[in-house]
Amino acid sequence: MFKPEDKAAILVEALPYIQEFYGKTIVIKYGGNAMINDDLKEKVMQDVALMKYVGIRPVIVHGGGPEITGFLKKVGKQSSFVAGLRVTDEETVEIAEMVLDGKVNSEIVNLLNRRGVKAVGLSGKDAGLIQARKKLATVYEGEESKKVDIGYVGEVAAINSGIIEDLLDQDYVPIIAPIGVGENGESYNINADYVAAEIAGALEAEKLLLLTDIEGIYKDFNDKNTFISTLHLPEARQYIKEGIIAGGMIPKVEACLTALEKGAGKTHIIDGRLDHSIILEVFTEQGIGTQVVR
Amino acid sequence: MFKPEDKAAILVEALPYIQEFYGKTIVIKYGGNAMINDDLKEKVMQDVALMKYVGIRPVIVHGGGPEITGFLKKVGKQSSFVAGLRVTDEETVEIAEMVLDGKVNSEIVNLLNRRGVKAVGLSGKDAGLIQARKKLATVYEGEESKKVDIGYVGEVAAINSGIIEDLLDQDYVPIIAPIGVGENGESYNINADYVAAEIAGALEAEKLLLLTDIEGIYKDFNDKNTFISTLHLPEARQYIKEGIIAGGMIPKVEACLTALEKGAGKTHIIDGRLDHSIILEVFTEQGIGTQVVR
Amino acid sequence: MFKPEDKAAILVEALPYIQEFYGKTIVIKYGGNAMINDDLKEKVMQDVALMKYVGIRPVIVHGGGPEITGFLKKVGKQSSFVAGLRVTDEETVEIAEMVLDGKVNSEIVNLLNRRGVKAVGLSGKDAGLIQARKKLATVYEGEESKKVDIGYVGEVAAINSGIIEDLLDQDYVPIIAPIGVGENGESYNINADYVAAEIAGALEAEKLLLLTDIEGIYKDFNDKNTFISTLHLPEARQYIKEGIIAGGMIPKVEACLTALEKGAGKTHIIDGRLDHSIILEVFTEQGIGTQVVR
Amino acid sequence: MFKPEDKAAILVEALPYIQEFYGKTIVIKYGGNAMINDDLKEKVMQDVALMKYVGIRPVIVHGGGPEITGFLKKVGKQSSFVAGLRVTDEETVEIAEMVLDGKVNSEIVNLLNRRGVKAVGLSGKDAGLIQARKKLATVYEGEESKKVDIGYVGEVAAINSGIIEDLLDQDYVPIIAPIGVGENGESYNINADYVAAEIAGALEAEKLLLLTDIEGIYKDFNDKNTFISTLHLPEARQYIKEGIIAGGMIPKVEACLTALEKGAGKTHIIDGRLDHSIILEVFTEQGIGTQVVR
Amino acid sequence: MFKPEDKAAILVEALPYIQEFYGKTIVIKYGGNAMINDDLKEKVMQDVALMKYVGIRPVIVHGGGPEITGFLKKVGKQSSFVAGLRVTDEETVEIAEMVLDGKVNSEIVNLLNRRGVKAVGLSGKDAGLIQARKKLATVYEGEESKKVDIGYVGEVAAINSGIIEDLLDQDYVPIIAPIGVGENGESYNINADYVAAEIAGALEAEKLLLLTDIEGIYKDFNDKNTFISTLHLPEARQYIKEGIIAGGMIPKVEACLTALEKGAGKTHIIDGRLDHSIILEVFTEQGIGTQVVR
Amino acid sequence: MFKPEDKAAILVEALPYIQEFYGKTIVIKYGGNAMINDDLKEKVMQDVALMKYVGIRPVIVHGGGPEITGFLKKVGKQSSFVAGLRVTDEETVEIAEMVLDGKVNSEIVNLLNRRGVKAVGLSGKDAGLIQARKKLATVYEGEESKKVDIGYVGEVAAINSGIIEDLLDQDYVPIIAPIGVGENGESYNINADYVAAEIAGALEAEKLLLLTDIEGIYKDFNDKNTFISTLHLPEARQYIKEGIIAGGMIPKVEACLTALEKGAGKTHIIDGRLDHSIILEVFTEQGIGTQVVR
Repeated sequence: MFKPEDKAAILVEALPYIQEFYGKTIVIKYGGNAMINDDLKEKVMQDVALMKYVGIRPVIVHGGGPEITGFLKKVGKQSSFVAGLRVTDEETVEIAEMVLDGKVNSEIVNLLNRRGVKAVGLSGKDAGLIQARKKLATVYEGEESKKVDIGYVGEVAAINSGIIEDLLDQDYVPIIAPIGVGENGESYNINADYVAAEIAGALEAEKLLLLTDIEGIYKDFNDKNTFISTLHLPEARQYIKEGIIAGGMIPKVEACLTALEKGAGKTHIIDGRLDHSIILEVFTEQGIGTQVVR
Repeated sequence: MFKPEDKAAILVEALPYIQEFYGKTIVIKYGGNAMINDDLKEKVMQDVALMKYVGIRPVIVHGGGPEITGFLKKVGKQSSFVAGLRVTDEETVEIAEMVLDGKVNSEIVNLLNRRGVKAVGLSGKDAGLIQARKKLATVYEGEESKKVDIGYVGEVAAINSGIIEDLLDQDYVPIIAPIGVGENGESYNINADYVAAEIAGALEAEKLLLLTDIEGIYKDFNDKNTFISTLHLPEARQYIKEGIIAGGMIPKVEACLTALEKGAGKTHIIDGRLDHSIILEVFTEQGIGTQVVR
Repeated sequence: MFKPEDKAAILVEALPYIQEFYGKTIVIKYGGNAMINDDLKEKVMQDVALMKYVGIRPVIVHGGGPEITGFLKKVGKQSSFVAGLRVTDEETVEIAEMVLDGKVNSEIVNLLNRRGVKAVGLSGKDAGLIQARKKLATVYEGEESKKVDIGYVGEVAAINSGIIEDLLDQDYVPIIAPIGVGENGESYNINADYVAAEIAGALEAEKLLLLTDIEGIYKDFNDKNTFISTLHLPEARQYIKEGIIAGGMIPKVEACLTALEKGAGKTHIIDGRLDHSIILEVFTEQGIGTQVVR
Repeated sequence: MFKPEDKAAILVEALPYIQEFYGKTIVIKYGGNAMINDDLKEKVMQDVALMKYVGIRPVIVHGGGPEITGFLKKVGKQSSFVAGLRVTDEETVEIAEMVLDGKVNSEIVNLLNRRGVKAVGLSGKDAGLIQARKKLATVYEGEESKKVDIGYVGEVAAINSGIIEDLLDQDYVPIIAPIGVGENGESYNINADYVAAEIAGALEAEKLLLLTDIEGIYKDFNDKNTFISTLHLPEARQYIKEGIIAGGMIPKVEACLTALEKGAGKTHIIDGRLDHSIILEVFTEQGIGTQVVR
Repeated sequence: MFKPEDKAAILVEALPYIQEFYGKTIVIKYGGNAMINDDLKEKVMQDVALMKYVGIRPVIVHGGGPEITGFLKKVGKQSSFVAGLRVTDEETVEIAEMVLDGKVNSEIVNLLNRRGVKAVGLSGKDAGLIQARKKLATVYEGEESKKVDIGYVGEVAAINSGIIEDLLDQDYVPIIAPIGVGENGESYNINADYVAAEIAGALEAEKLLLLTDIEGIYKDFNDKNTFISTLHLPEARQYIKEGIIAGGMIPKVEACLTALEKGAGKTHIIDGRLDHSIILEVFTEQGIGTQVVR
Repeated sequence: MFKPEDKAAILVEALPYIQEFYGKTIVIKYGGNAMINDDLKEKVMQDVALMKYVGIRPVIVHGGGPEITGFLKKVGKQSSFVAGLRVTDEETVEIAEMVLDGKVNSEIVNLLNRRGVKAVGLSGKDAGLIQARKKLATVYEGEESKKVDIGYVGEVAAINSGIIEDLLDQDYVPIIAPIGVGENGESYNINADYVAAEIAGALEAEKLLLLTDIEGIYKDFNDKNTFISTLHLPEARQYIKEGIIAGGMIPKVEACLTALEKGAGKTHIIDGRLDHSIILEVFTEQGIGTQVVR
């Protein structure tokens, strides 16, 4: 389909990127459409395999909100949400863990293994990887705000990244479910963007890629001309404060800031709805999406 | 409570066993009462931790039949059995995997981590650990028998033990859920005794310990005097053939035979209902249960 | 110029080849037009760099006949040829060595270093790499043939590949000039195709690529329809015997046979006049040229 | 003799201690009754073997005063003492060295080897382990004191612990005779408590255990109620100054202080007359004797 | 010829030097008569081999001015000199490189290999070893001086010593031709004394030995009594300033100063016209020549 | 005293020997005059140090008969001999061990350490190095012979050379006292020639050097012309049988035969009364003494 010289030209274009990222760790938050659409899913797996074969050390952190919702329905359990967070009682977190760790995670592991990559699934419990604590929801009533306990929704207290590093050193690809473990051994469901950010920081990863369902960040979402290619840390903080970055964009940008503050090199909010968005971001000159950098 | 000299005497009695098993791999099939009773569970965890701290490399393979049954009920799914095996459609195996990998396994991992042992959960999908194929049920009608397809019930086709060895070499304790993966990436639920046996064989483990809910093997279960302390391989095969070993004992003894044939050193059917049955078997002179040996 | 999805598709097409050749050694005989034309030369360097960055261990053996002829003219020395081989007195071999080792070789080293690859030049003298002996020319007179001494033209007596392996293990790319050293320390000029073949054999290389100025092997050079994509070893021997393979093709095919017999995996006669012929051969599904295999 | 559950309970009690000391170095000063009584000797050997098998790195420094005295008598040499130190002429130190290195040391080595531990005997001369200098005796006359030269009685000038560490790293148990070597190659007999202390410091050992013939330190030896379980460094210094710690206790406590100051973690003065005093101190919750700590 | 006791005595005399230099790197600038006279050449090779066999890591940097001049004549090219430096156009530097790298260097490599030493030739291009920049000649006219561009004569901009260290670590002896490579890939001919000095500095070599055609440094060359055995750094700088060290001695002493400033231990200007001057300097108590030290 | 060129010549003569023995193990039986005479002793130490510094791995096995006799006298114990072997009761072997291990051995260790060599003393008890059994004396009465029990005189049953190899690998020089340990832990005094031979065999040493008080082997000791430079294994056996080799020569030659049979490369009976006999044998072309070879 392609002319030989075109093939060669594209492989050659990828050369400096292959060189640059050789032996480097790249953390990918995998979620949204790219995880639901079977064709996109297949292409993400190809992308991860390609990264691995050219010497990059990929680490995948995945979400799974829709699968959890689906399964809760199946067992006849209604989900209620406070401030966008699912109210999570003990039974809910147990089901969330089963779905994330026993279904979503092992499916990704399986897909990668079938492509010749040695993937290994982890949850935050394995070797104490993700230490968590309860996260309260913030509810605004007029100008007041209050903190509400919504159960087993957590945030990262600490990352014990030893097991990830040991697996990377032995050429495995770690696939991580965002379940954390509390002081008393209880499970917490944690937002996967934040988990990916904390892990990217702890590993001092070269890059954090957040696969989202948007093209990137706009100053004004109604005006395509206001697209932001690069956002620097202080600017990003300012935009959040001023409400320019708002709604669903906030956790994405906050995750990027966390990763950068904790030691990651660069962070990228990319459009997971595009075919091979990872490969395009990593191996071609046309950066896609919005990068948040120091 | 104990006199100092008694404490010392018992520690000294353990000395030759500690010496003998230093650096050796011991595979434990964990299931039955020892997994249901909270107090026994706690003691098994202590035993595994003790083994680890005296330089043994323990590997845990767990079952989880009751938990699967429980969860299937919860989602309103009836289980039917053919020849003692659960008829397992696609939805059932999906739930089995979620329960085994996302609940039972991660609970064991969590308990061990809380005791200072670095445990890591694996399913048969991780790094392609357990390759499986469909296992047909054998149904007897009078003197005839026929093979019946009961869905995603599997048997071990091959073990890729690399990930276990890599984790052991880095001082982790692998906890393994008995889910296998077929040629086309489909999941199979496999009897944990057989999985433990195949893994013990593949690792050329020093010992395979099967924690059961019986005291061991009797020639005649009604006559306590017919207890068998040691069973040799040819004898065991003969007893199965003659029907002396029958019923629920068959898979246990077959698992022992498989492990021995594939490379394990010794195998033990022990009574998991006793406190600290593992420690007693491994570190004291009073072997408990029935050992099946070459 | 290319659409993102095309770029991604081509990178993904390369994936299985990158995977297959990871950590493998590929020996390239570099010569002919690809060494004279500056644009082709640049592209060969890109190709070698790409191989290196995706984890392949490339080894380059180069020729340099035209440069030797040029320099001999410069010093006013006429070249005479017997049976296609240059009559090589002591002064000639000294100049050949200076040109090959001190000019052609160091230029290739330099070009690769400038692309971020750590190249190191070797001649057959370094660490005794190429042990040589005199090769007599075969001259036919009618049906008779006789052997003629034409001076310091050599053939490979033995390869001490230690220095190549040591350099490869430390991530260098060895660039080798085809100068051999005789029993008494004297230099020999050796055909680079044969040197590449012997080295590919000694290293048990995955592949030997001979860059030539032809498209590949034809049963009948006048009939483009007789192109041979794959030639098996016995067939190749037969064709040489029958004169189907003749003239300048003989040393190419003989080199392939030697490499295969001594331990190389596959051999390829490819058209070095095409842009990026190496990349196309190694990383795409469209094999180019003629492969000679077992 | 013991019930299975008791055995298990005691092994489990030892678990946290085994965990805590895994891979740590423990220096034992071996002397007194524990070295004379054959039954106690046997038990010390069992204790050292147990430590070794659960991953501790034991180092033994032994004394041998009574054996030296016995042998001097045999050769018809009278011992005289000044301020509690043996006047040691050249012949005496030669005999002391022969007894300590050629008899006491090799007997301990032999006993441990017979228990499956690879013990290696060292004197301070081996690889220059113990550099020594002359120690003068302090003689009090009324309120005055003077220093008296009593020959080849030494004190530690420096420890070259390389040979100990190399042996420990290769799984040997070093057994050390307290002979030091002076600047001119002359031998010195040194108090084994001090040698053990200096070695514990140089190795930054986790613990120093001094096996003595007393139960520990009392504020008033006549009043059993004044037993001191834990003594802190400043307190210890104060007690020596005030004469509360006096007589034979001084060198023991001083050895502890030296070890702590030079880098050891904790020090213990324990009653070597008890069966398995080492095991009880190291592996059970009932600390025995007096610990001197920072 | 020698009495056994004499042989033994001399070997014993060498002992402390063998001990002192074991595992140390010694850089030798090889040039002058020692490179022209066949007998001296042979003895230098013996000396280098001896160094290698007693555990020293020798590195050779060679010159080759006379050979370059000879070859330029052969191709009918006249050399002109400005301020003692050869005016070097593109053709000249090409020929210089061919002579140094393709002839002089490979001859030394060959001679050492024939003595059982694994020598490997390098030029400054290999793995980017010698980064160079243009060096202008300084021409004095009366009291004025001006800088004159004389073409491809270079000076060291940076040393990438990785390839030397990698070869030394694998027991090879690196032989280095003083060709540097500029920013745009162009070649420069550089004074071998300076190259040796920079390499000795970069390697933090124990010693730099400059083989020259003089006995060493005199305060007054006409007065043999003014010979300087040891010259300290400040003194050396002063003597150059005052014109006491002048003419051909300046580059030698400057090379020593550079080596010392960049990290070498000691430097020696020795008389390469003496048999085995290297051995005598390194292994006997009679230092020969002038040493320049800190 | 020597001319520079002579020094150089002798060092150069040693070159091939240094090369040949680099990294090889040489076992030296040290005894006789070379151990009694202080000047010879000093020279042996120099020789061992030289060997070490040029990369040889020396192992010393020493005797000590005269010192034992001396000390036995001191304690008023008479020695009686049967068939040339000392009748050795328990007290005698205890003293022999003290003298060999605690005096002779530690003195050699000390002398070498003072020359910058890291020497470590071993007896056959250390890490179970020399396993021994009782050796009966053979007493001839006319044509009859009978075996007589003479107590704790032993022969080698097995060598556990692990400790020697571990020490050699870490650059120590092992000094070994010829005390063996029996099945029940009892000590045996063993002929040092045989111990050295067994150790040379177990280590597959390059050479065994026996330092003796004779020049070598003669066919007829009264005729200097019958000196044997080289003796082959079958010949040696024949000569012993025929009585040509007799008396004190028998154990020397038997030791050589044992070493050769067990794996040593070459064996040498040399005259330890000569200055630097070791250096001369190892590093010069004039072999001294008699070599016994395969």
